[in-house]
Parts: sequence; structure tokens; C-alpha cells
Amino acid sequence: MEKINVGVIGATGMVGQNYIRLLDNHPWFNVTYVAASPKSAGKSYEEAVMGKWQMVTDPPEKVRKLIVGDANDVNQAIGKCTLVFSALEMEKEKIKELEKEYAKAGIPVFSNASANRHVDNVPMLIPEINSNHIEIIPLQKKANGWDKGFIVVKPNCSLQSYMTPVYALVKAGYEVKRMIITTMQAVSGAGYPGVPSLDMIDNIVPLISGEEEKSEIEPQKIMGKIVNGKIVNDTSMKISAHCNRVPVIDGHTACVSLEFGAKKPSLEEIKKIWKDFRSEPQELNLPFAPKQPIIYREELNRPQPRKDRDSDKGMAATVGRLRECKVFDIRFVCLSHNTVRGAAGGGILNAELLKAKGYL
Amino acid sequence: MEKINVGVIGATGMVGQNYIRLLDNHPWFNVTYVAASPKSAGKSYEEAVMGKWQMVTDPPEKVRKLIVGDANDVNQAIGKCTLVFSALEMEKEKIKELEKEYAKAGIPVFSNASANRHVDNVPMLIPEINSNHIEIIPLQKKANGWDKGFIVVKPNCSLQSYMTPVYALVKAGYEVKRMIITTMQAVSGAGYPGVPSLDMIDNIVPLISGEEEKSEIEPQKIMGKIVNGKIVNDTSMKISAHCNRVPVIDGHTACVSLEFGAKKPSLEEIKKIWKDFRSEPQELNLPFAPKQPIIYREELNRPQPRKDRDSDKGMAATVGRLRECKVFDIRFVCLSHNTVRGAAGGGILNAELLKAKGYL
Amino acid sequence: MEKINVGVIGATGMVGQNYIRLLDNHPWFNVTYVAASPKSAGKSYEEAVMGKWQMVTDPPEKVRKLIVGDANDVNQAIGKCTLVFSALEMEKEKIKELEKEYAKAGIPVFSNASANRHVDNVPMLIPEINSNHIEIIPLQKKANGWDKGFIVVKPNCSLQSYMTPVYALVKAGYEVKRMIITTMQAVSGAGYPGVPSLDMIDNIVPLISGEEEKSEIEPQKIMGKIVNGKIVNDTSMKISAHCNRVPVIDGHTACVSLEFGAKKPSLEEIKKIWKDFRSEPQELNLPFAPKQPIIYREELNRPQPRKDRDSDKGMAATVGRLRECKVFDIRFVCLSHNTVRGAAGGGILNAELLKAKGYL
Amino acid sequence: MEKINVGVIGATGMVGQNYIRLLDNHPWFNVTYVAASPKSAGKSYEEAVMGKWQMVTDPPEKVRKLIVGDANDVNQAIGKCTLVFSALEMEKEKIKELEKEYAKAGIPVFSNASANRHVDNVPMLIPEINSNHIEIIPLQKKANGWDKGFIVVKPNCSLQSYMTPVYALVKAGYEVKRMIITTMQAVSGAGYPGVPSLDMIDNIVPLISGEEEKSEIEPQKIMGKIVNGKIVNDTSMKISAHCNRVPVIDGHTACVSLEFGAKKPSLEEIKKIWKDFRSEPQELNLPFAPKQPIIYREELNRPQPRKDRDSDKGMAATVGRLRECKVFDIRFVCLSHNTVRGAAGGGILNAELLKAKGYL
Repeated sequence: MEKINVGVIGATGMVGQNYIRLLDNHPWFNVTYVAASPKSAGKSYEEAVMGKWQMVTDPPEKVRKLIVGDANDVNQAIGKCTLVFSALEMEKEKIKELEKEYAKAGIPVFSNASANRHVDNVPMLIPEINSNHIEIIPLQKKANGWDKGFIVVKPNCSLQSYMTPVYALVKAGYEVKRMIITTMQAVSGAGYPGVPSLDMIDNIVPLISGEEEKSEIEPQKIMGKIVNGKIVNDTSMKISAHCNRVPVIDGHTACVSLEFGAKKPSLEEIKKIWKDFRSEPQELNLPFAPKQPIIYREELNRPQPRKDRDSDKGMAATVGRLRECKVFDIRFVCLSHNTVRGAAGGGILNAELLKAKGYL
Repeated sequence: MEKINVGVIGATGMVGQNYIRLLDNHPWFNVTYVAASPKSAGKSYEEAVMGKWQMVTDPPEKVRKLIVGDANDVNQAIGKCTLVFSALEMEKEKIKELEKEYAKAGIPVFSNASANRHVDNVPMLIPEINSNHIEIIPLQKKANGWDKGFIVVKPNCSLQSYMTPVYALVKAGYEVKRMIITTMQAVSGAGYPGVPSLDMIDNIVPLISGEEEKSEIEPQKIMGKIVNGKIVNDTSMKISAHCNRVPVIDGHTACVSLEFGAKKPSLEEIKKIWKDFRSEPQELNLPFAPKQPIIYREELNRPQPRKDRDSDKGMAATVGRLRECKVFDIRFVCLSHNTVRGAAGGGILNAELLKAKGYL
Repeated sequence: MEKINVGVIGATGMVGQNYIRLLDNHPWFNVTYVAASPKSAGKSYEEAVMGKWQMVTDPPEKVRKLIVGDANDVNQAIGKCTLVFSALEMEKEKIKELEKEYAKAGIPVFSNASANRHVDNVPMLIPEINSNHIEIIPLQKKANGWDKGFIVVKPNCSLQSYMTPVYALVKAGYEVKRMIITTMQAVSGAGYPGVPSLDMIDNIVPLISGEEEKSEIEPQKIMGKIVNGKIVNDTSMKISAHCNRVPVIDGHTACVSLEFGAKKPSLEEIKKIWKDFRSEPQELNLPFAPKQPIIYREELNRPQPRKDRDSDKGMAATVGRLRECKVFDIRFVCLSHNTVRGAAGGGILNAELLKAKGYL
Repeated sequence: MEKINVGVIGATGMVGQNYIRLLDNHPWFNVTYVAASPKSAGKSYEEAVMGKWQMVTDPPEKVRKLIVGDANDVNQAIGKCTLVFSALEMEKEKIKELEKEYAKAGIPVFSNASANRHVDNVPMLIPEINSNHIEIIPLQKKANGWDKGFIVVKPNCSLQSYMTPVYALVKAGYEVKRMIITTMQAVSGAGYPGVPSLDMIDNIVPLISGEEEKSEIEPQKIMGKIVNGKIVNDTSMKISAHCNRVPVIDGHTACVSLEFGAKKPSLEEIKKIWKDFRSEPQELNLPFAPKQPIIYREELNRPQPRKDRDSDKGMAATVGRLRECKVFDIRFVCLSHNTVRGAAGGGILNAELLKAKGYL
């Protein structure tokens, strides 16, 4: 199979850097185009990220020499890549329009930005949960009059740790009615320079602006159904989220209390459901799919961000401490890698899914 | 007024050190006796804590030279002090018996240990909430055949941040039915050496052994009533607690989601109730009583441990982020200083209360 | 004695906030004027620092309501204060000129900025070392044609930990020829937002831009002599400094290796010199003067920032681990509080000195 | 080539765990034996490390099931492995004897312990520097009357960062006369539980017991020569080391000031020497040998532990900030991974060297 040429727009920011890092040696994709702000445009990628590169490995040899395009000018991408990963950092409305322009120009967009997440014909994918939402793409193209381009988005990083474990229970026939969640989120989620060290030494901050809202609303779309060319949210599951910033580099942790509907599984059943859970990315054997999407750890003091975030290439959700809740039915702790599964890795998995299903 | 001579048993551990630090220049109490394990007994306090002293100020001049007694030998305390603060660190059953021996010997015990917390005639005090529970002391003395001695305990540090704010609402007439709480607790709660740094750099640990149980059960006794010479728990409020260890020196934070009974206050009413809340320690003007027991902060990103733990000498609870909960009625974040309000400071306030009420 | 009315220019930044905090209830000074950038001008101080206030105590009641002036407009200060503390954060050349304008307008300036540090008739004071340098002030006034105004500066925070201990040895008759110093500096030195948390979790950064140069050159002026109306640097002591940023909130630590001239004191003599060291601020009993400017700790693992930075109100230098050096003569570790002694506290001590000596 | 069966003694401690982790899928070695204290003996390795495992990857499948032997009983190792890696943690004298017993029993010992480091016929290897010291092994065997067994040790982790860069200069003809070094060392060096978090949050500790002595003396043996069957130390290079513990998980950083002899290279020459430096492990293409033993980074703020420790599998030394020293000739910052290069990885490289040179 010939590799597909891909671009990364917003390639010099931290999410963009993660795309560059994770796409190195990807078996299906080949980075042939990078774009960023007009300030970076015209420089080599190496120059453009000088003093800004935050990854622990150096930029891959062949990306270093690529000349950075202007992300605002869609024409510069044409002919240089077949699809783009969007890690744009600009005003929301501007991103919304720009991503549409790429799609209009025939370039499928796999976006990390929140701008298009609530457009009702744009699928917001966690491929383990709602890979079927890609079926809306022909309708999205048609509604916009687009030929080859389309937009697919991924949800916010904060919900990756709990949504797959919760979905696995729903899929097994146990309705989930209510959840109260407290997250303890890593600083990498805020980019660089991001969270000041004065806030993260001997301290935590009980606020991440906008994060609680995303954690509560996005699951409703992910669990939704396609009806008449639109994804209709499933509002049956109520979520309340407390989001906190803690002094951790990578890995968002969540403490979850959950109430089932009438049918309630035992703790042992739940563990079995999680261990046995497999989904389309595993069946399709996608390169970035975790072999086991939900890892349950029996140790009483796990998951822990430093020890569990890199499980299965940083793409698995790790769960532990399943026990009865004194108020709802069950409670547990879960964790996922926010800059891999929750950002660039998730975007790559989305593109792999679309490729495997013949959309690219 | 002549100062009361007090002892600290378990004086060389971290809670004991905090007692020594906080009692320095206390207007009512004078440390005249310190006791610890047989290994420390016979040494000067200064020698006994050499290489173990964890406070940021040095040991007070007059305590340095005190000769450490053997905490196991109650006779050594007799005549040296009128009451003791117990910061014993030994097997639970041993503490339970030893504290009784001090009481039997005529020495009132103000304990930080959990050993006697669930003895039904021992009051577990947060003086802002259940100062009336001290009325059980005559019954406790009688039941044990004790003359002057008695035992008073304080609850676990984890619940100090939320219990006073919750009680203030109950007192104002709003029944609280259910709460789901996630704590992010400081490492000082585990003593020294305590939590390894390998667990607290770029990491959090979602387990503090025994802490969730205490956080759920102890409030029931604090909210209880004296009936027939016993404190009977109030089990009407259901609590589920997730307890986490985070890289913070001092200050336990809690994210709380709370469900009221039929009567539900508005957010503005709640803030007013908290701001106006006063109780017996304030009325009695006790030296360690915070002027304002519940401080509400309007800034969106507060409370934060490093900035709010020392409010009102470390004795106030700081609350913020009051907002509606998507699942229950309200949610908020609260914080208290675990080694001051939650440990030695709380014990001292208990003793002040008993003194002011004529029990000493 | 009537209190002197003082202003703080650059009052909303982190050094300015520290001035406001430390001047609260000062026995000699009364904050009656605050100034900042045009953006803040016209607001109350409370409004101006909203969301920016980084101190752990809230702004003092009476400063909250002060209306912020425009620091660029010297006229606004006239009549409102007798002297100003300068915590300006702007381009160096601009600060240099602006501080002169205040002096010209008759307002003495006590500056934390580096802009005027190397003007040869501006004294750079560590009052324990070179309080005699204030004798240049009449000459400075004359040279500039100023009537009542003048400029006094304080040196960089990084050298406060080692300069007083080193000077004490020189004063005792032991020439110091060479020093190699490695600092481990707190993040508060960089202000807010300052150092990103991504750089300070599980990491250190071996660079603080410009800091090594200051650490090497400023001591030469401090140790200098007034000759013909100029302070002439003493270049006899060679210093090489490595400056590192470490995950500490407050307190700069330095590891020092030092070579004496021909005359070499014993380790015991050195400790005695340090313990006995007193200087003009102590003799004048200045409010911010530490009782004991150099505290030597015998514990093998001290000084430590969290435990020693607050010694004597954060104004003392704490030294430990004095031992022989395998390459030079001696080595030791020293520490001082960078935002107190090394910034606002040092500036206040300078003003106290000038007041006590009749210059104000 | 058939793989060599190897054992790890002291396999359950943190260095032992690193051996198990790093030896997984080693192309030449196969872990067939693990031994630890009598308390662990008889359990499966999985059981023995339960609750103690500190690596971020789980124990390798085939080691999990190995039954742990008693490290004190050399006979248990016989027949189960051809050589052992020693990560013993016991009294120094006991280790010294026990390692000799293994050697006597015909089992070569590659040790991380300090016990035999100063035995004059035991080579202390950094293969990039003194691989020729292995020529003493026949003499060591003869002196002890050993047949197949022998002992090879590796030096302390603190000196790995600077010794190879310094040696490269010496090898290029530039005598190094004096060095003053300040290290900032990671907490993993102290094992688990190791350094308390109360010492590493908002703090550093300026003492690592015994570490300065090792950092000063061990280089003399490494730079030594074999004379009459003994390794004679080279005492011409004077080193003074300040060793500090900082809140970093892995990676020891050192700030070095260095004085040359009469011949002094330019900064550009030095960089070239470092970049071009290659040695026997590279020539032999040993599996754990870094391709480039000394990596020089031009960025002004590097090396940093979190970003540079994993360079070339954690086996390279990373150097940066080369500049003139105001006191000596040059200064620079260097870094190496203490638990890989400085511990288990270094031990494995030693064994690879011995294998490649026909000693195994």
C-alpha cells in the first residue's frame, strides 16, 4: 500500500508537535505538508519550532526540512497532501470557517479543535464507541456541496478516560442514568507556556475554563444517533463534572460515581465487560488502536498518571478501584493520556478508521 | 487567669510537633509535659526530635529542654499537666486503652487518634457544629467511674473542609440528603517520611487507605444526637467519598456535589448563609476560633491550597465555585488546612471549648 | 514619630504586590500612593490586581481603595508620597529615565530594577555590607542638580544568599580570591505567569537569562569604594556563577566553593565569624533588619528552601554544610528568600537605613 | 548466536527491577534466574514484587513466573545462569563477600553495588573510557584462585554525566587539572520509598549522604592505569563535588567548572571533540552502546532532565551551555539517566563488553 500524504495545520503548537511526533514512521501516513501562522510561514519547520519544541524526542528528520505553509491559505495545501490534521489555535469562529474551507477544497479535515464539534452533521468520534457515526459523512458532503472533503472531529481530552468504560457497560445492556465525575487533569492539556509553575508547585487549581461544560455535553453527541441526516444527542445520561488542574505532565485522571437504570451489573460482571470489550478499531486492526481498549488494574492504588498513561502506546483507558458507591451504584477511577489518546493519537485513529472504511 | 499546664503525648511525631508549634505562646495553655515512645523517653525534647523535626519554625525555647516522658506510663504525666493532647501513633487498640488510662488517672484527653472516635459516649467535636455534644461528658465519666478525666476526640482531617459548610445549610433549615465528594489531599496528612516522592512527582495516587470510610461515617456521628447517654448517629445524610493524594504540602481540597431535601436554597441564599455563619467558638471568642468559620471566595479559581490554607490562622474553611450541579442540586469546592484545623489546631480548639464551658 | 507617606510604582506586578504586602502595618512607612501602567491607571488597586494578585494574604484594606496612578506620569505622585519604591517592569532604558524623573521631581527612589545599578554614583546597597555607600548621595544629587530626590538600588536576588556570608569573612580579615557558585533558584523570581509548569514538573532548567552576569558583576560594585564621587568596583574577587531554575516557590539556594588569599581561617573560626556578625542595620535596630543576619545551621541537610527561607522574617541568610573543598579552601550551602530579602524586603530595608541616617 | 542465561541478584529492589525491565528482549542475554532476600525466596517474581514494582511497564511475561531464589545462597544460582547482575541491597561488607562467593562459584558478577569498587584488581568500568581495564581480569582470577568467575563493577550514577565528556578532552590531549561540580540529582537514585515527598515539594535537599565522596574519588580509579596487577588511581585531576537532591524522577544534572593544564582547547574545538568522540562500545557495536556517547545541544536552556535523559536509549551523556568560566577555563552543564546509564543500563553494557571481548 502506498502511504497517504498528510498535512498538519497548526503544526507548530503543542498539539501540532504531537501530531508530527506520532506520525513519524506511521505505516499508512506520510507527513508532506505543515502549516502554521503567517509568522512561521516560509521558514523550515525546524526553524519555526526553534525554542518552542516541547516533545522529548527531536523533530523527525524529514519533517524538519519541510517549508511551513500559511494555514490561513488553503491553496497552499492543495496538491501537497490528501488530508489534514487540524491542530489550529485561533479564534473559534475563524477555525470553524477555515476547516470548512479545507473541506470545500477537497481536503478531508481531522480536527482536534472544538469549533465544529457541535455541527450536527459533523461526527465527533471515539472510534471504540461511535464509529458508525461516519455514515453521516456522505450527508455532510451533500449538505455542503463538497466533493471529496469532509470534517471529522474528536471530543475533548477530559472525557476519554471515562467514556469508553461507560459505553462498554451501556453496550452490554446496562443503562447509565447519572454520573458525577471529578477530573484531575495534566498541565500538558493547556499547551505551552500554559499553566504557570507558581500555580502548580505545592498547589492545585480547581478550575479549567470551559472544560466542565465540554465534559458534560460532548458525551451526549457521542452517544447520539443519526436521524434524518443529523446526529441527535442522547440526553438520557446526566453528567456533572468537576475539573481540576494538578501538577502532572501527562494523563487525565477521573473519579467517577455512576448510577445505573433498573438493571444493575455486579462488580465482577463489570470487570469482565471491561476486560472483554473490543470494538471496530480492534477488529480492523488499526495501527493506533489499543489491543485492549480498557485495561482494568487490580492494584488498589491504580491507575496513576505516571505509571498508566502510556499503556498500549498511550491509547488505552486504564481503570481501577471499582467498588460500590454509597450514594449511586458504583464508583471507580480511570485515566487516559491526554496528549496521545486525548489529542493527536485520537485524531490519527479517526483518520485510520476512515481510511480502513474506504472514506479516503 | 493562670495558664493551664498541658501535656502532649506522642509529642515527637508530626501531629505532636504541630501541637508543640501551635501551643507556643498560647494565651491559656502552657506546655509542661511531653511524652513519646520509650526510645525517646529520658532525652530532652530537642534531642528526641533531632533529625525528625519537620516544622518550618524551630522548636520553642522552653519545650526544647523538657525531658521526654514515656507515653505508655501514665504515672509519669501525673502532677506534670492538667490535661493531655494525644497524638499517639501506635496500634489502634493500644491507643484506645492508653487514652482511657490517662482519663482514669484524672487527666482529660483531647485526642487526634481515631481509636476512640466511635465509642458512643465519647464526643467527636467540630465545635462549630456539635459543641453541645460535650454535655455527654458527665455521663461518660459516670459510665467509666472516672472522677476528673474524660476523653474528647476530633474527626478525621478530610472532612473539615466540607462539614462546616454543609452543617451551616442544615442549620439554616435545608436538609442535605446526599453528597458525592472527591478529595485531593496533602502529603503532610501521611506524616514523615510518609508519601514517597516517587509517587508525588508528575503523579497523583487515587487511594488513601481507610480515608474514604472515615469521610463517610464520621459525619453521621458529628450530626448525631445525645439519646439516653449515647451519641446516636444521624444516618439521614448519605456520603460517598473518593480520596486522592496530590503533590501539595498542606491543605485538603474537596469537590462536592450535594442534593437537598424538598426545600432548596438559591445560590445567593447559600452564600449568605455561609458568610453569616457563626457558632459557639466565635461567641465564646476562643483563641483558636476563626473569626469567620466559612470564607466564601468569589474568584472563579479558588480555593487553592497554597493560597487559602492559612486563612484565619489555618482554622477557617474556604469555599468557592458554588454553582448548580447537573445531577444533584449544587456543587462547590472547599478547602481546609489539614495539619492545623484538621489536626492539632482542631484539638486545641476542643480544649478551649471545654475550658470556656467550665469542664476544665 | 509620624509615618512617612510612600508610593509603590509598578505596584501591580509581583514585586509591587510584595511591597504592598510587606509594607502593611510598617512602623515607619504608610502606603499612600500606588502607580502602574496606563491600563491600570484610574482603577482602584483592588480592581487593578483582580485575577493577578499572587500573595497568600489578601491586599491590605487601606490599599485596596487607593486609585492607581499612571507610573509614567511623575506629576501624579507629587504631593501624594515622600518617596517611592520602584518595582517597574518595562524596557530597561525607559525605567532608567523614569526613575531619574522621579528623583528630579524631588521624590527619592528605592529601586528593585536593574536599570540604574551600574550608574557610578548610584549606591547598590546590601545594608549589612556597604551601608557607607550612601555617603555618595549628596554627590549624586549635586551631579544631577537634584534637590531632595535621589536614587538608591538593591542588587539582584541571586547574590543575597552568599554575599553577606562572604563579606563577613572579608571584614574579619580573610581575603576572598575566587568563588565558583551554583544557584538553584525559585520560580517566584520570574514573576507571574513566569516559568511554565511544563518546565518545572519532573524537571529543572539550567538557564536564567542574564542572571549569571548579574551574580558575577554586582558583587564587585557592592564591595567597591567611593573614590572621587564615584563608586569604583573592587575586581579582586573573581566569581563564576551557574544559575539554575528549580521547582521551588520561594528561596534561592547556592552551593559555593571559595578560595581565600594567603590567610585562611579554620572552619570553626568561620562559623564563629558568621554567628557573631552584626552590622549597621542591626545597630540601628531597623524594623526589617534581621536580628542575626547570618544563621548557621549544624544539621547536615540544611539549609532547605521550604524550611529556612522565612528565617527572621525572610531577611536572614541561612548557611550550612561548611566543609573543606577538595579544589579551593572551603565550600558551603547558603539560602535567602528571593522575594523578601532579595526583592521588596531588601528595598524596604534600604529605605529604613536612609531614614535612620537622616537622608529622608 | 545462542543467548547467554543471566541472573539478577537483588532482583526485587529498584535497581533490580530496572535490570529486569532493560533485559527484556535483550539480543544476547536471557533472564533465567532471579534472587532476592530470604523473605522473597520461594515466591514467583510477580508475587515478590507485588506492591513494590516501580517501573512504568509491567514485569515481562517470562520473568513473572520465575521462582525467586535466595540471593545469599550461591548454590541456588549454579546451573541456572552463566553470569549475574548484582543489585544487592544489604550491608556493604556482606555484599563484598557475597559477590566474591558468586565469583568463586564460577559465576561472573557485574555489580552496581559500591562494595567492591575500590578493590584494586576489580575494574570499575565506563566502557567508553577504560574498557582496557578489563585486562586485569585474568590477574584478578589468579589472585583469588578463581576459575571462571570474576567481578566487574560500575561507578556511581552521579559521575556518568561528566566523566565521559571530561575523558574525551583528556583523550584529545588536554590535561584536566581541577573541576568543581554541583549535581542536581533525581529521586529515583534513592530507591523506593526513598526520598519523602515532604522533602521534594517546594523544596530541594543539599545533601546526598556519601555521594560527594564517590563523585570525587571514583574518577581517579576510572582514569587510572594497570600497574603490576593493580589498578593505580590517577590523582592528577582534583574534583570537588556538591551533591543536591531535586524534585526530578530520573536524570542527574551537573554544572561543571573545569581548569585545563597548559594546553587549552577553544570552545569550538571542545564541541568538535565531543561530537566526534567514539570508543570501543561503539566500535564493537554493543547493543546498549549509544551511537553517539556525547550529545551536545546548542539550545541555551538544555540539557534538561525530562527532555534529555532518554537520549539514545538513556545511554548517552547530554551536554550543553559550554562557555568560558570566569574562574577556571570552561564551564558547562551535563546530564545522564541515573537509573539507565547510571545503573542497570551501565551494568548491561559492561557485560556486553566482556562478552564481545571474549571474557564470557
